[in-house]
Amino acid sequence: MALSGRVASTAQSISHHHSAREAPITLPASFSGPAAPCSRRAPCQTPTHASPSAAHQRQGCGPCTLLLPPAGQRRGARTTAAAAAPAAEASMLQQQEELVMKTVDVSLGTRSYPIYIGNGLLQHRPELFRKHIPGKKVLVVTNENIAKIYLDKTVQALTGGDSQLSVESVVLPDGEDFKTLDDVARVWDKALQSRMDRGTTFLALGGGVVGDMCGFAAACYQRGVHFIQVPTTVMAQVDSSVGGKTGVNHPLGKNMIGAFYQPRAVLCDTDTLTTLPDRELASGISEIVKYGLIRDAPLFAWLEENMEKLMARDTVATAYAIERSCINKAEVVAADERETNDLRATLNLGHTFGHAIETGTGYGTLLHGEAVGWIDRSILDRTRTLLQRARLPVTVPPEMSVDLFKSLMAVDKKVSAGKLRLILLKGPLGSCVVTGDFDTAKLDETLQHFCSGDAKYSV
Amino acid sequence: MALSGRVASTAQSISHHHSAREAPITLPASFSGPAAPCSRRAPCQTPTHASPSAAHQRQGCGPCTLLLPPAGQRRGARTTAAAAAPAAEASMLQQQEELVMKTVDVSLGTRSYPIYIGNGLLQHRPELFRKHIPGKKVLVVTNENIAKIYLDKTVQALTGGDSQLSVESVVLPDGEDFKTLDDVARVWDKALQSRMDRGTTFLALGGGVVGDMCGFAAACYQRGVHFIQVPTTVMAQVDSSVGGKTGVNHPLGKNMIGAFYQPRAVLCDTDTLTTLPDRELASGISEIVKYGLIRDAPLFAWLEENMEKLMARDTVATAYAIERSCINKAEVVAADERETNDLRATLNLGHTFGHAIETGTGYGTLLHGEAVGWIDRSILDRTRTLLQRARLPVTVPPEMSVDLFKSLMAVDKKVSAGKLRLILLKGPLGSCVVTGDFDTAKLDETLQHFCSGDAKYSV
Repeated sequence: MALSGRVASTAQSISHHHSAREAPITLPASFSGPAAPCSRRAPCQTPTHASPSAAHQRQGCGPCTLLLPPAGQRRGARTTAAAAAPAAEASMLQQQEELVMKTVDVSLGTRSYPIYIGNGLLQHRPELFRKHIPGKKVLVVTNENIAKIYLDKTVQALTGGDSQLSVESVVLPDGEDFKTLDDVARVWDKALQSRMDRGTTFLALGGGVVGDMCGFAAACYQRGVHFIQVPTTVMAQVDSSVGGKTGVNHPLGKNMIGAFYQPRAVLCDTDTLTTLPDRELASGISEIVKYGLIRDAPLFAWLEENMEKLMARDTVATAYAIERSCINKAEVVAADERETNDLRATLNLGHTFGHAIETGTGYGTLLHGEAVGWIDRSILDRTRTLLQRARLPVTVPPEMSVDLFKSLMAVDKKVSAGKLRLILLKGPLGSCVVTGDFDTAKLDETLQHFCSGDAKYSV
Repeated sequence: MALSGRVASTAQSISHHHSAREAPITLPASFSGPAAPCSRRAPCQTPTHASPSAAHQRQGCGPCTLLLPPAGQRRGARTTAAAAAPAAEASMLQQQEELVMKTVDVSLGTRSYPIYIGNGLLQHRPELFRKHIPGKKVLVVTNENIAKIYLDKTVQALTGGDSQLSVESVVLPDGEDFKTLDDVARVWDKALQSRMDRGTTFLALGGGVVGDMCGFAAACYQRGVHFIQVPTTVMAQVDSSVGGKTGVNHPLGKNMIGAFYQPRAVLCDTDTLTTLPDRELASGISEIVKYGLIRDAPLFAWLEENMEKLMARDTVATAYAIERSCINKAEVVAADERETNDLRATLNLGHTFGHAIETGTGYGTLLHGEAVGWIDRSILDRTRTLLQRARLPVTVPPEMSVDLFKSLMAVDKKVSAGKLRLILLKGPLGSCVVTGDFDTAKLDETLQHFCSGDAKYSV
């Protein structure tokens, strides 16, 4: 079967019967020393689909209050690994066709939910989402491109066998520039036309845009219906589908209209990544790099060892990177669900600049992960190399001016009492702070260089 | 001053230095016996601004699971009374100008909040809302008619003295037919144009429509900002401003798009009711009657004794009726915030029919409280008399057909697994059930009579 080649090809190097912390990480010699002072501002540029990447400017900011014990040793996320192959199959067949399936739990009390990660989930494990659908009606929300490839498979997974589910679908136009209130209203129109009641489940099938829109539609339909995420991009699988941030864009700012609304389950089928364009793949990988930068130095080191496997869409390496990212995300979300104490804000490393670029160049021009970040000098080289290996852009779009940046950054959601706050890497690789206590003249200077097109100031 | 006449005129009959349960209730001889069987369906029609009134059809439905101890003896609401007159004033002056101020607390853990009820609150007690505004920016959301009378007063209350608040406002068109997604988007436009951040407070100044829209706008702006209700109609003060139901209408159903989102405080200034049109006053009173019917027989009896005072806008009687209604609402909301166990659904007595009429006749044609209900035979006469004394309509609009009723009722939010559920009075006055277990043929028959214009079938 189609899966066997990919799984077999990586079986030797990476076992898929391990817990997250037993993953085959080869740590490089030194990555944990304190970052050296940054003598110049060094902007970098990365990709887009549902949330951007790495941003940093070393400043004399306050003490780091966000340093945490290593990921995996904290509350908030639990991971389990399982092989899903039927026990009756022969050993050799098992080795070839074995499916990877891991579960990461997001601990949010009564709103807790599992993230299932693996290959062949839609095809072989439809019960994984069916068991989270309490009613009889499902509304699948997807986009034109995903619908062509995965809508029939998803409907089949929902309705096959002895399923009693009735499934309707809404196919939205594809892309960030259709992430609007008018487009999300089409979901409500369809739900009401289909007389869907409060017991209905909305299912997001697609990338970050579809997930954010479907989640917002679910949050507001009859004041809240059930919601399941089936993310089909790396970006959505490692970040946007987890944690309950939903919403749409406004002409004056990205994700300005939305809700915190948790899904009942997230199903990350890595098979859906086989059809992902290279640019989308790279955009998603930038988010994995982000987790390494802000809180998981071992993951950063693992990426340095395994970037080519990720770029080649190796199933097991991909599942591992997604699982590890989800563990990081789940821990942060469990500790700060509604971004009230700045911990969750660290996930937005680079977003202040990235959202400005997305808004300034028009939604959809750049993928979300192709956003801009500032990286500390001491880890700049490693990060630049990693991003280049992921084929991520490292220069600012020509239409971005300093004034445009500043105007758009002024409406960032992290602005508090009129003051801009940034997420800045601080201390050893894997830690950062959220602060408004930085030198605004240096921010201006950096933006000047950044927009001058000076290659020296790329990552 | 303007208040003294109204307060003085009622000082003899009703003391305003009492707790809710010490209110001057004169109970009529017998009101608590079990309801007699209803031999025919008797529809009634009542008013509109933010949520309708009394509906009942006696049926052979299951055992009543919603009977509760009398209001005021349960957890979820706490009430306190206070006189706000400066201690330094002379006794005679005090008697003339004394302000009534009561507080009902809505107990929802970290989302608990107070409801302040009294006269002169905007003018004399601006600290009551100021202390619930954590940031420096306020966006007042109101409508054209309310803005003319109360916007300046509200801005003055927010910005007077040593206040550091910066206040902007959005004036929406007036009425239920403008309770749309496009109109609520104007609030977001204004907030973004004014660069309002997550620390901003949205303040709803108006009736139920403004409160629902502003609350929804607050729930979704940057995924949630602070929110305060300053309701200016009886309907909003006794019902819609309390409990966190927010949202807008959809052409296919009322309040279909929305969120559960609690305010930080509710300020019910009874002075704002002096300018309320008679029809709006009656519409609000229908909600007070509702509390009597579903869970507070003593309140029903009090209404029978005091309806003329309410209709004459007697300050103390009005404050008492609002306080008592808010206690009922707060208890229900505290026990079932998100309408998950049917308790909160009882507050929708009459809404299944009322919303159908509002949608069928076009939003804004009828006030919300002018909705339709079915009342059990044994209390029918008392209810009819009470509604007529409140000058509420008791016949169905001619454009409502049986098919239109059934079509619109099919998308009611209480529909579960495709089955319509109704709130039916059962047992003694003050108790009811939510059930899908009723004779649909009798519902059809009732709707037939109801839409035939047969005067016998009015309340």
